[in-house]
Amino acid sequence: MHKNVKTEANTSDIQIRKKAARIRLVLTDCDGVLTDAGVYYSGDGEALKRFSMRDGMGVERLRELAGVEVGIVTGESSPIVAARAAKLKITRLHAGVKDKARLLDVILAETGMQADEIAFIGDDLNDAEILKRVGLSACPSDAMPQIISIATYQCQKPGGHGAFREFAELIVAAKTESSLKKPTIPVVHLSTQ
Amino acid sequence: MHKNVKTEANTSDIQIRKKAARIRLVLTDCDGVLTDAGVYYSGDGEALKRFSMRDGMGVERLRELAGVEVGIVTGESSPIVAARAAKLKITRLHAGVKDKARLLDVILAETGMQADEIAFIGDDLNDAEILKRVGLSACPSDAMPQIISIATYQCQKPGGHGAFREFAELIVAAKTESSLKKPTIPVVHLSTQ
Amino acid sequence: MHKNVKTEANTSDIQIRKKAARIRLVLTDCDGVLTDAGVYYSGDGEALKRFSMRDGMGVERLRELAGVEVGIVTGESSPIVAARAAKLKITRLHAGVKDKARLLDVILAETGMQADEIAFIGDDLNDAEILKRVGLSACPSDAMPQIISIATYQCQKPGGHGAFREFAELIVAAKTESSLKKPTIPVVHLSTQ
Amino acid sequence: MHKNVKTEANTSDIQIRKKAARIRLVLTDCDGVLTDAGVYYSGDGEALKRFSMRDGMGVERLRELAGVEVGIVTGESSPIVAARAAKLKITRLHAGVKDKARLLDVILAETGMQADEIAFIGDDLNDAEILKRVGLSACPSDAMPQIISIATYQCQKPGGHGAFREFAELIVAAKTESSLKKPTIPVVHLSTQ
Repeated sequence: MHKNVKTEANTSDIQIRKKAARIRLVLTDCDGVLTDAGVYYSGDGEALKRFSMRDGMGVERLRELAGVEVGIVTGESSPIVAARAAKLKITRLHAGVKDKARLLDVILAETGMQADEIAFIGDDLNDAEILKRVGLSACPSDAMPQIISIATYQCQKPGGHGAFREFAELIVAAKTESSLKKPTIPVVHLSTQ
Repeated sequence: MHKNVKTEANTSDIQIRKKAARIRLVLTDCDGVLTDAGVYYSGDGEALKRFSMRDGMGVERLRELAGVEVGIVTGESSPIVAARAAKLKITRLHAGVKDKARLLDVILAETGMQADEIAFIGDDLNDAEILKRVGLSACPSDAMPQIISIATYQCQKPGGHGAFREFAELIVAAKTESSLKKPTIPVVHLSTQ
Repeated sequence: MHKNVKTEANTSDIQIRKKAARIRLVLTDCDGVLTDAGVYYSGDGEALKRFSMRDGMGVERLRELAGVEVGIVTGESSPIVAARAAKLKITRLHAGVKDKARLLDVILAETGMQADEIAFIGDDLNDAEILKRVGLSACPSDAMPQIISIATYQCQKPGGHGAFREFAELIVAAKTESSLKKPTIPVVHLSTQ
Repeated sequence: MHKNVKTEANTSDIQIRKKAARIRLVLTDCDGVLTDAGVYYSGDGEALKRFSMRDGMGVERLRELAGVEVGIVTGESSPIVAARAAKLKITRLHAGVKDKARLLDVILAETGMQADEIAFIGDDLNDAEILKRVGLSACPSDAMPQIISIATYQCQKPGGHGAFREFAELIVAAKTESSLKKPTIPVVHLSTQ
């Protein structure tokens, strides 16, 4: 079904589901993932960025249906991103991050989570190192080629136009299915052997 | 002609025309239907949404040619949507609606209309229940997969880029043809037999 | 070459060139031609429209290379369009026009031009009548189906993304070639017979 | 690999690499290259232009990895472009340039560079002359046809959506590979013969 899953990495649809079922925190880059990398300038400088309401519903659904929090990790320091994060009730906003992989270490230490409980979605070269270290990595369909070659899951949707939502739904589906199945299926299997 | 009509629902082109001819009120979601789901943020928060002038003409044509009113039903409460509704002389603006299907009951009771006199077009999961209950349901070409599987008519155009207008023209055509044909064609057919 | 030219109208590439060579005034709709029909709203109403710098250069080239003026004819009355017209030094701005065909009569009377010296490019139903009456009619690639069926030349580019420029270049090429050829080619042909 | 390289110009992938390796200054047009040619107007005139964060990272990478500076050469005089240049720490901003080829002479004289150390990327007719004179010329995928026929390298990405970044990466790759190879490979080859 996920035809964008790279076969050379030998990560099947089922393996991605398993990875997704473990996720407790989704970290996302901003520009190029929550936006299409566009930034609107007036004569006074950066004025606007365009986000997607669909992604906003993805953040909500991760939180409410799957108990998964979302954090934004961006190399920029823009009040626009802070405003969007506030609207989506995202309290974990890491702005001006020059070394995203190092930030991961800080987050792991601070939260006590394991790396395989954290997902990351990014699109550009400064996302490469953190993408290699998290439990489930993803990128929009239109990410930089080097990032597409690293990410486990390449979305069918581009940045700013549904990539984050697609990744969120994958995790919501994996988490809600697995939480339903955990108590029942193993028991059934054991008793029928 | 409407190649997007789902055959498994066994709703033919003619059946959609018949449903459309009965419509007296078109309700539409905002984000993802009247827009492409984009929202433009400044450092002060939500600043702009992009609408289509073509959809605006659709609202006018529904009203003037077919006597059909349009209402907006949205989960959000945005002054931007209120401004757009005012420009289009849409007085029925239901904002901040968390349960759209329940709102339908209120509208039915208030107007005395039947459910089959109301159409709804939506794109995301919170539109699912109301889509199942109205007389004619539609979605933009780029709606969420779950909504595409529910809606009777899937537009060929995406949200913010002609989906609403396409749905409006379908209803205008069905209403104006049927109102012209009702008094004349049956009579002619009977007399020529 | 112009593969979008409709064959059923029997208007060949050469015929379009001939019509274009006669044009002295290009009238254009605004929304859906100079823009992609999008309009950006803030909570205070209509805030922005997006134009193309490429179209701006088309206006300049029509004026400077071919001596052809450009006018905007729009059903709306927006200060945004007035600002864009001012930037492009377009003095002929007809805003709030409810009957564009009737305006054509006024322009013909006022300028003393013939209808075949005027071109019009439009995209929506309120452009239908004027399109039928001018010397050369055109529409963007993404015009309403009814307009595509009327216009003599359907651009390969959509509104706001090069349609006007494409139409302008067609006229510039026809005008400059014909003005160069008029004094020379006929003479050569005669002398070689 | 670079399938957009024009074969009739007989400029192979390797030849482009060689040209790119010599570049010390990349000059870029603004509208249609750093943007998709769109300009957003309010009632007060030009209000916004949309840039790409990906292109911004291209400017940074040229500077930091390859020691190549970037300059903007534009026919317009817009405070918006000045704001974007400032953000990207581009000090070489040539605005209101009516004759870009003549500006090239001024830059050559001022910097003491050779023409083959300068690259230019442009999209419209006023870029034609300078494109013919620089060491490496490029255009976005959606440039005007006349410019596509002139430029040595046609990007696979359109203006405002990755064209500049693609060109920047081509130069970064050529410069960093060639600087690594210069001291080592020739020696190895000689000693193994």
